[in-house]
Amino acid sequence: MKTVSDYIRTIVDFPHEGIMFRDVTTLFADPRGFRIAVDQMLHPYAGLEIDKVVGLEARGFILGGAIAHQLSVGFVPIRKKGKLPGATISEAYTLEYGEAIVEVHDDAIKAGEKILLVDDLLATGGTAEAGIKLVERLGGEIVSCAFVIDLPDLGGRARLEAMGMDVHALCAFDGD
Amino acid sequence: MKTVSDYIRTIVDFPHEGIMFRDVTTLFADPRGFRIAVDQMLHPYAGLEIDKVVGLEARGFILGGAIAHQLSVGFVPIRKKGKLPGATISEAYTLEYGEAIVEVHDDAIKAGEKILLVDDLLATGGTAEAGIKLVERLGGEIVSCAFVIDLPDLGGRARLEAMGMDVHALCAFDGD
Repeated sequence: MKTVSDYIRTIVDFPHEGIMFRDVTTLFADPRGFRIAVDQMLHPYAGLEIDKVVGLEARGFILGGAIAHQLSVGFVPIRKKGKLPGATISEAYTLEYGEAIVEVHDDAIKAGEKILLVDDLLATGGTAEAGIKLVERLGGEIVSCAFVIDLPDLGGRARLEAMGMDVHALCAFDGD
Repeated sequence: MKTVSDYIRTIVDFPHEGIMFRDVTTLFADPRGFRIAVDQMLHPYAGLEIDKVVGLEARGFILGGAIAHQLSVGFVPIRKKGKLPGATISEAYTLEYGEAIVEVHDDAIKAGEKILLVDDLLATGGTAEAGIKLVERLGGEIVSCAFVIDLPDLGGRARLEAMGMDVHALCAFDGD
């Protein structure tokens, strides 16, 4: 029986030369693949108190929406700058070339709420770290960070664990 | 008891002056609001054959991921140009100022597959029409188009129904 990683397609040289892009759209498009990915992402949290799921734009929305609905909790998007209509707080983070800014509505999380952070891929951990900082600035407590794919060679897991984070991923690819 | 529309916030003058922006993030952030929105979006399709859910970037990903998981079917994203890593087909559509292009992976939908199209908001219907064309060019059959909000004054529902589409929305706001 196929496992989650068997459904993931690798696209060579996207978005630019030398990158092996791990494409989860083939996982999501498969009925069994998507079902088991979402369900397996949830398994570590059975019985834990989670108030909200926070998803990182954009593939984290697909997973985060499914996970929040399954848990019957609220969903909060962290978006690129300028996309959220209400009052926001923002965090900048470093990309390979330059930097990016992500935002969250400043009333989307209340102090003390227990948060599950969700994205498809953990690479350098820059986006996830910015998301964690946004949640913590609003007083939220990150219960865990859940990903489909971990690229351990890029150091994201080590970076998040050094921040005291609990990190779960369904599969890992080496050599990225 | 609050209904779906009670959870939706209106932001005046976003993204520019004169627009009453209907903000679903307050609906999504509420545990009961998000749960009932997703469940009510599914109700018209109980017992129907649906092979895949297609979600429009980006808020359609949050809803579409939850709906696809609940139905145990695959999820296919329609994204803005340049975001999908594999081979795509694209459709241009007109915005208030200029035009935009959306894409889908050319192998994401097979001929004859029954598709549920999902987004948060039906305004002019331009994005939805582009999405429908992409699905149909790949041989998919749209079973229905599901939205949280309909803005009937902007003509999207009439436009999609004139294409022969079945359209469902959870609530409507006049005067937009």
